[in-house]
Amino acid sequence: MAKHIEYPNLEPLFRPKSIAVIGATEDPRRVAGLPLKFAIEHNYKGKLFPVNNNRESVLGLKCYSSILDIPEEVDAAMIVVPAAVVPDVIEQCAQKGVKVAVIGVSGFAELDKEGKKRHDKIVEIAKTSGMRICGPNTNGLLNVHEGISLGYSYAQEVVIPGRLGYVTQSGALLSATVPRFARRGIGMSYFVGAGNQADLEVFDYVRYLINDPNTDVIAVYVEGFKNPQKFIDVAGLAIEKRKPIVMLKVGRSELAVSAAKSHTGSLAGSDPIVDAICKQKGVARVDDFDELIAVSSVFLKCKLPKGNRVGIISSSGGAIGLVADRAMGSRISFTDVSAKTKQQALAVLPWYGEFKSPFDIAAAGSKATQDVELARKAVDFILFDENVDILLAIITPMERRGTQNYIQAIIDASRSSDKPVILFAPMGGLREEEETIFYEGNVPMLTDSAECVIALDAMLEFAEAIRRQKDAEELPDINSHVDKEKIKKELFDKKNKTLSEHESKQLLSYYGIPVVEEAMAVSPDEAIKIAEKIGYPVVLKIDSPDIAHKTEADAVRLGITNRDKLVHAFHEVENNARKYAPHASIKGVSIQKMIKDAREVIVGLSYDPQFGSVVMFGLGGVFVEVLKDVSLRVAPLSRADAEEMIKEIKGHKLLEPFRGKPAADTEGIADVLLKLSAMATDLGNVIAEIDINPLMVKGEGVMAADALVILK
Amino acid sequence: MAKHIEYPNLEPLFRPKSIAVIGATEDPRRVAGLPLKFAIEHNYKGKLFPVNNNRESVLGLKCYSSILDIPEEVDAAMIVVPAAVVPDVIEQCAQKGVKVAVIGVSGFAELDKEGKKRHDKIVEIAKTSGMRICGPNTNGLLNVHEGISLGYSYAQEVVIPGRLGYVTQSGALLSATVPRFARRGIGMSYFVGAGNQADLEVFDYVRYLINDPNTDVIAVYVEGFKNPQKFIDVAGLAIEKRKPIVMLKVGRSELAVSAAKSHTGSLAGSDPIVDAICKQKGVARVDDFDELIAVSSVFLKCKLPKGNRVGIISSSGGAIGLVADRAMGSRISFTDVSAKTKQQALAVLPWYGEFKSPFDIAAAGSKATQDVELARKAVDFILFDENVDILLAIITPMERRGTQNYIQAIIDASRSSDKPVILFAPMGGLREEEETIFYEGNVPMLTDSAECVIALDAMLEFAEAIRRQKDAEELPDINSHVDKEKIKKELFDKKNKTLSEHESKQLLSYYGIPVVEEAMAVSPDEAIKIAEKIGYPVVLKIDSPDIAHKTEADAVRLGITNRDKLVHAFHEVENNARKYAPHASIKGVSIQKMIKDAREVIVGLSYDPQFGSVVMFGLGGVFVEVLKDVSLRVAPLSRADAEEMIKEIKGHKLLEPFRGKPAADTEGIADVLLKLSAMATDLGNVIAEIDINPLMVKGEGVMAADALVILK
Repeated sequence: MAKHIEYPNLEPLFRPKSIAVIGATEDPRRVAGLPLKFAIEHNYKGKLFPVNNNRESVLGLKCYSSILDIPEEVDAAMIVVPAAVVPDVIEQCAQKGVKVAVIGVSGFAELDKEGKKRHDKIVEIAKTSGMRICGPNTNGLLNVHEGISLGYSYAQEVVIPGRLGYVTQSGALLSATVPRFARRGIGMSYFVGAGNQADLEVFDYVRYLINDPNTDVIAVYVEGFKNPQKFIDVAGLAIEKRKPIVMLKVGRSELAVSAAKSHTGSLAGSDPIVDAICKQKGVARVDDFDELIAVSSVFLKCKLPKGNRVGIISSSGGAIGLVADRAMGSRISFTDVSAKTKQQALAVLPWYGEFKSPFDIAAAGSKATQDVELARKAVDFILFDENVDILLAIITPMERRGTQNYIQAIIDASRSSDKPVILFAPMGGLREEEETIFYEGNVPMLTDSAECVIALDAMLEFAEAIRRQKDAEELPDINSHVDKEKIKKELFDKKNKTLSEHESKQLLSYYGIPVVEEAMAVSPDEAIKIAEKIGYPVVLKIDSPDIAHKTEADAVRLGITNRDKLVHAFHEVENNARKYAPHASIKGVSIQKMIKDAREVIVGLSYDPQFGSVVMFGLGGVFVEVLKDVSLRVAPLSRADAEEMIKEIKGHKLLEPFRGKPAADTEGIADVLLKLSAMATDLGNVIAEIDINPLMVKGEGVMAADALVILK
Repeated sequence: MAKHIEYPNLEPLFRPKSIAVIGATEDPRRVAGLPLKFAIEHNYKGKLFPVNNNRESVLGLKCYSSILDIPEEVDAAMIVVPAAVVPDVIEQCAQKGVKVAVIGVSGFAELDKEGKKRHDKIVEIAKTSGMRICGPNTNGLLNVHEGISLGYSYAQEVVIPGRLGYVTQSGALLSATVPRFARRGIGMSYFVGAGNQADLEVFDYVRYLINDPNTDVIAVYVEGFKNPQKFIDVAGLAIEKRKPIVMLKVGRSELAVSAAKSHTGSLAGSDPIVDAICKQKGVARVDDFDELIAVSSVFLKCKLPKGNRVGIISSSGGAIGLVADRAMGSRISFTDVSAKTKQQALAVLPWYGEFKSPFDIAAAGSKATQDVELARKAVDFILFDENVDILLAIITPMERRGTQNYIQAIIDASRSSDKPVILFAPMGGLREEEETIFYEGNVPMLTDSAECVIALDAMLEFAEAIRRQKDAEELPDINSHVDKEKIKKELFDKKNKTLSEHESKQLLSYYGIPVVEEAMAVSPDEAIKIAEKIGYPVVLKIDSPDIAHKTEADAVRLGITNRDKLVHAFHEVENNARKYAPHASIKGVSIQKMIKDAREVIVGLSYDPQFGSVVMFGLGGVFVEVLKDVSLRVAPLSRADAEEMIKEIKGHKLLEPFRGKPAADTEGIADVLLKLSAMATDLGNVIAEIDINPLMVKGEGVMAADALVILK
């Protein structure tokens, strides 16, 4: 599915050598008064040109009446004039050879029809001139380390420098949330508001940040994908470069989808597919800003863990339960320390009846926290234990110097180990004297148990995505023997968009997907011969390219055990089909082996207009129809992807040994999913949909009992 | 099930006229130095007696060497001596006639065997003397309004007065979280740490607070219920008195259960039953302290809404989606304003293309927020609209005075309406000038979208619980005609604890639960006569009190359509049963009508050692076995309880019209649930378990096709 995706050069945006502020004024209470002010305050080292035909100078700088009057080259233009004149200004910028323009005002596609015209106009100019556009409807950006500002958000005043890149589609939420990051001590390398994404889009910026040496982690707020393939591609790059993306994406609900549309004119995209891509590509999708901040902070401060075993030290017995409850269903596993550690620890901390993880450091009257050396030893016994991959340290206020000693011990211990150390503070923050110690260290502090679990899970998922990517480098060879061109031609020659069951199964078997033994009969006599050959019991189904829903037509009969019943069923199936669709072309009745003692699952391939070919898996019957219990992945799939799809559904227990049935052949299911993925790669532009429903799954072996292929 | 539950008199604990602090010292860095210090600082109006045999006076007060030396009456004693001497001190307190003692030290049942002995000793003294005990292993309590302190938690220094009562089992989490409430501007009437609940327990304190005129809402952190029936009873009182309980209860996971046990010696109780009781009794169960704080603040500041329709005004289009996404699956319904309001609003705010809810007040360039009067009008158009029950106002930083004007408008509007107004601030807090306005108002501020949804849902659930309680006052008359004593005698006379299917069904029919037509045959000839009478197809099942699991014994045959098959099946069933359990007493073979075109559901009654009789409902097959998709309620049930049980399961869609079947007779299912509840009330001390599996449900009518009753 990989298309040729082109990415812009964003150096002139994030590191312009010269900036023009078009519409600049001196009044700091107005939007137009801020960009120049911020640029000056951040000590911009390049050249600054105010443009305003009502002024001689602004903030001490010579002012030009038009950008065309500026005698030097202009890399970037920040535009804060009314929307109505923006197209003309943009035209001039292009003429001037400006490389990138930031449109800091609203009144475009998000507002009304006139606004949409303005949108189309500026997109047209960008396309023909090659000048790139950030926004409109954005409050701009800041290169924090180099002090390069093209914007006017309140965030410019409060951001602190660091290694998080932050890209958000909403300007209001940029201003709202950068202060939250700062209050939690999380510094940024860049932030940028993407606004309406008329030209440049969220994942253009994300890609730049992935390649940026000052950025370790990228936090993203997004309402809609302009080019969904770019999202997939950039997420892949993030894994390759080991730079986690933490993404808050709205659009799970109808109201959110319509709000996003009216807000920035974005299409939110199919939410379950977005979820699937995040799982597949290790993107940590979160649902709120607390989570965005918590997960970002853990990625920023911790190395990835080697495994999922979490040891706990806590000054509150109760708080352990908070985390344990939340961790149900997560990837986290809580572990005790080894027998060796227990023994060693008891020699040092003899007043605890037993040393174990979770370890309640306050249980014996805070003895261990009255002394920073002892506290350190308690922490070390868990952190350095061979069973422990991650240390969760829980802290509540203690008497005397207890809290300070305990924090000191945690910070010191974390410095001497590569294992992630997370601090969970149910009190929501530290006292001043404790904060001093804390901020010197490299330990993220989380203030609720959900944050702890979401953040740890995100680390484990990212580590897993890295492993999967390595695994995917050797994609299984499925389709090298398949004559794709011949098949494509065959499909192009079809008259019906909807293939019959027989044709559909034939296509599947080209790719090695096993299908149930069957043959077509045009008379009861033929049917008898076939049934006797393949053996009773058999199944009868009408074979007609015009009847896709055979059950609805009552043109299927199961479990036919003898000749009499067969003849009777043959007539019934034929008659019902004719009644259901009098003008249908009927090829005959398909006689198939009845598969017993098998589980029924559903696998399929569909084409999403935004995300391309999507592979689907679910259990048969009510699981898909009522509970919508399906898993999705975008093609191409690795074997690990296919295996996770199978494990992911809620009803997965039904694939384990159940009511006397052996475990289902999940390897066989995974094979079929990979084959569907290969079909998507080869035939994605021909095939609209494939449904295998049911795929019969035995202890060993799988077989498509029914199939439906729809062409584009 | 209502037992005689006795409640203590807690006046001497929360309003003692005199207090002795046993173990008092002057060193404020030690626990023993704090209770007297806090009592003095809070300006305690009663008499204070330090007790310490090493000192003449403490903090300027005459010190006694033993409580027995105090010449006046002592209502309450705060004990901060080492655990080893606590039993002796408690003995002396009892002798002195102290009404209640707070044991502020650890080293009891939570520590070791010696500690358990001390625990038993003090419990014994309390029982014989009538003196009540708070703790041990608690940092005490504070009556905030009257400044009466019996404790030493750091929380004593930071709490602010207000109308929230706070009861927590963990002292560490009390100290950790009271500051969080205070930082959010939430004041308290009382807080108390229950500790090990050796005598007084969490729900004794909660009950006191429900009856307290200074308390409107009770927040609870609990690890285990000492007397689970008290929890149920007190939750019922809370509804009656319209005082919501917000409860953070750990114990969903195994690790949390074992942590609670080692922490305070508490048994966590069956978590799904705790959940069920919370739903039934309108207790808002939360999973973290942010949620505890958020839900408490909404209950404190808002009147209950009349309905679930939420109107939104926002200064950020994106933030609307955050809340909408979270609200999926909640009770919340987002609503637009009426046509009339739309028209009126456009006359006042003409620069918006359309007035609607959600209303993006910043969309037209913040025009409406540049003027506080206009902002107020925008808020009013939504708040006072006839379609709106609740206003959610979302705020992000705006330029110039926008933010302040908008907050002012929200606060002013909320004062003129009884409808709840909730402020969602994704920026996590307000700037100083905004906070000044905000804290004058009566609007709760929440900082993430999950909090908004959880808090609104909690209000809706509490309002619903009030409605249910009114409804429950007229409990349906189910069992007045039943001769309970006769039935009890019949059950007492049974030799087997496990009743046969026939006996089980007989018991059900005493309570009017319809059972499938059946009769017992001891020979094939008899079977034929019965089958011909009730009509083919029939079902055959072995009838033996010794074979509870007939399917496992392969002693069931379904869908028998004629005489030959009947005779064959009769022998098979009999032979298989004998093979399965050679010594079983076999009464015969039950011949039953085969029910077709019905849905199979499972209903049951079981006895939980902590919570008493529990009624269960679920769908048949994989839904219960694999997905554990069941709903529970403790008996007695109201009709509304029964109806909610049915709606609550994930697979409830299967009860709607489905694959040609009409909607299931849910009224009939509810009847059976109510009848089981009545059986629990009448026969709870005789019956251990009832399983009706399956209950066949048609479009009209339900029938027990199989039943199993186990006696205690």
